[in-house]
Amino acid sequence: MMLDRLRQAVDAGFAQQTAFLTELVKFPSTRGEEAPLQDWMARQLAARGYSVDRYVLGDLDMSHLPGFSPVLDTDYSRAVQVVGTRRAAAPTGRSLIIQGHVDVVPTGPTALWSAPPFSGDAKGEWLHGRGAGDMKQGVSAMVFALDAIRAAGLELTADIHVQTVTEEECTGNGALSTLARGYRADAVLIPEPTDATITRAHVGVMWFRLRVRGVPVHVARAQAGSNAIMSAYQLILALQRHTEQLNAAARQDPWFGGIPDPLKFNPGVIRGGDWASSTPAWCEVDCRIGLLPGSTLEDARRGVERCVAEAARADGFMANNPPDIIWNGFQADGYVLEPGSDAERVLAEAHQAVFGAPMEERRSTAVNDTRFYGLYHHMPALCYGPRGINVHGFDEAAHLPTLQQVTLAIACFVTEWCGVREVG
Amino acid sequence: MMLDRLRQAVDAGFAQQTAFLTELVKFPSTRGEEAPLQDWMARQLAARGYSVDRYVLGDLDMSHLPGFSPVLDTDYSRAVQVVGTRRAAAPTGRSLIIQGHVDVVPTGPTALWSAPPFSGDAKGEWLHGRGAGDMKQGVSAMVFALDAIRAAGLELTADIHVQTVTEEECTGNGALSTLARGYRADAVLIPEPTDATITRAHVGVMWFRLRVRGVPVHVARAQAGSNAIMSAYQLILALQRHTEQLNAAARQDPWFGGIPDPLKFNPGVIRGGDWASSTPAWCEVDCRIGLLPGSTLEDARRGVERCVAEAARADGFMANNPPDIIWNGFQADGYVLEPGSDAERVLAEAHQAVFGAPMEERRSTAVNDTRFYGLYHHMPALCYGPRGINVHGFDEAAHLPTLQQVTLAIACFVTEWCGVREVG
Repeated sequence: MMLDRLRQAVDAGFAQQTAFLTELVKFPSTRGEEAPLQDWMARQLAARGYSVDRYVLGDLDMSHLPGFSPVLDTDYSRAVQVVGTRRAAAPTGRSLIIQGHVDVVPTGPTALWSAPPFSGDAKGEWLHGRGAGDMKQGVSAMVFALDAIRAAGLELTADIHVQTVTEEECTGNGALSTLARGYRADAVLIPEPTDATITRAHVGVMWFRLRVRGVPVHVARAQAGSNAIMSAYQLILALQRHTEQLNAAARQDPWFGGIPDPLKFNPGVIRGGDWASSTPAWCEVDCRIGLLPGSTLEDARRGVERCVAEAARADGFMANNPPDIIWNGFQADGYVLEPGSDAERVLAEAHQAVFGAPMEERRSTAVNDTRFYGLYHHMPALCYGPRGINVHGFDEAAHLPTLQQVTLAIACFVTEWCGVREVG
Repeated sequence: MMLDRLRQAVDAGFAQQTAFLTELVKFPSTRGEEAPLQDWMARQLAARGYSVDRYVLGDLDMSHLPGFSPVLDTDYSRAVQVVGTRRAAAPTGRSLIIQGHVDVVPTGPTALWSAPPFSGDAKGEWLHGRGAGDMKQGVSAMVFALDAIRAAGLELTADIHVQTVTEEECTGNGALSTLARGYRADAVLIPEPTDATITRAHVGVMWFRLRVRGVPVHVARAQAGSNAIMSAYQLILALQRHTEQLNAAARQDPWFGGIPDPLKFNPGVIRGGDWASSTPAWCEVDCRIGLLPGSTLEDARRGVERCVAEAARADGFMANNPPDIIWNGFQADGYVLEPGSDAERVLAEAHQAVFGAPMEERRSTAVNDTRFYGLYHHMPALCYGPRGINVHGFDEAAHLPTLQQVTLAIACFVTEWCGVREVG
């Protein structure tokens, strides 16, 4: 009966939810540009009766907190975070944080998209756009699952915090800030696009910048110079070999042993030189590398530093002009959701009820924000959400039928976890 | 006696010449930013009594002319060229074009310079700065050699054109424009920093941009994507092997056979990707490659295109997503100054008189503007000038004692070539 009441409410609200998601996608909320979306979100939550805490990362000192990632070139005075809270009058159930991120990764060349990436174009079962999948649809599921509970004539008997954060794609400092500000709960749900699976474990991720020098000379005398672009390539090859060794060792890992090459190394951005006819004097490569849960960031950094130092020593120029490594962005631990929590059991039951099949689990070779709650604050932190395709790629899209079901599953989970009572 | 009169005048003017060179160096005349310098130069020439023709490249249609190089992203409405002419009342001697370029290559990271690159800082025998060596000192030599002739009480009995152009470092379209505009003479002198040698031959140069695509995916699924940065490196390696083959064949060349690896390939600028955690969807590399005099640009382009196509075919992704090659910038033929011209003989005598030693020759593995005059218009085009160090590198500098001697040698050459008469 409860399921039917909630289903009716979710279905009745789904046209509005799709419109809400379209609005969300239309905000070009790439890193540093999320503030207008967050302002809009704060108004949306306030209009629904949430008590809204809107603040910017620049207001907080977090550099001493576990999980903090250093940043370059990002203006935290514009990094708006939003926490909407609905407090139960006389709490009897278990409190919940439900969180989504609104930052999106860059679009890449827009010519390679079928429709403009911030148009919110919908075709049949799919709603396209950068961030439609990862994870603006999840944000719509959070908001509309709770709307459905109200629409079904119910109210929660525990506190709930609805959090939309930034920086998930690069540092996690948005999620960290909600903890720094003091928000806590008995469980956390983050509806990343998991295709209705629960994330059992995710790897850690580190970002770093390689900075290589060269000796610029007129190319007519190229043998007298040193080409920083080619030096950078030597370091990339060395890091690829290093990653192969890490993955060989990862075959013994209890969580990731069964996944081929779970630790990815990615040279993602490169810039170097300024003139075709001069040997380039500098080259910078922004890189990403994974690490296993349970291993330490410190050890992983030392591994990268040793690899780069050895490659540099083997090179005539770099031996005397060692490259720099700048640890900038993600310094993110891996995380394992230990099996057996009540929160997971309640979510699995909600999933079974909606999908008619058991909730499967996945292991993720990328991070998400659950680590802050689970690893540093021992709250069960569930990563479970709808289905997205081409996440971080061209023609990213949200699958609307799955979104509708997951919204219902979340509504069921919340009613069971927090408890509900009939509204007068 | 003539030598002594000219030497006295050059020496008397050298403090002023050094100040003139310092002014020139202070203009940050990188590509596209030369106009203020050229405006100043036009005033300098007008003040000396030259008839001045100042125009911009955007005024001319040159795309049909041999030697023209296509450009991207450069605003030719701001590309100011200057031709100062002094016409002889009753010409009896041989006319001369004396030309220098005022564009300079980028500075690279200024932190790596001992003094700011546009400060015109002088230390002992050296005047530092980007362009001090290549070739603002040569421009000062042109202007002050002619000033010295006047100061010595002489005037030329033939027409002379004093030309300052741009685009020498990237296309040569500045020099080409003076020919398009109709300037011709019986000989041409370009005082590039040759350390008082004559340039017997120079290679040709082509610029091109490699544009490689990739498939961006979240790095968690990196095996499903294709990394454009790594694809670009495959092409660079293939072009390095191609260049080795070209240099093996060059051992048979009459002019460059004795020079190890005269044909340089340089990946000079790289840009790719926009996010550390996404496989990069694009990468562009601006490249430079040489060719021998006598070989054709068309053949050289076909060689590059074949090399890139073969490397692409060997790669799973690039085979179906072939990279683009954009021929942008230098499409410059090589040039040989055939021995035996009167102009060269007169210059050699002037050099011998000033330096007390024969003028040596060099073969250059980079282009200069003489090709336009020599190759397409059959004027003897002499490249001979002062001494510069760290050209295109950090702490570029002009060697002032050599500059003073070369200025005198040029004055001697001009008086002999054009003829002079005493001014009343």
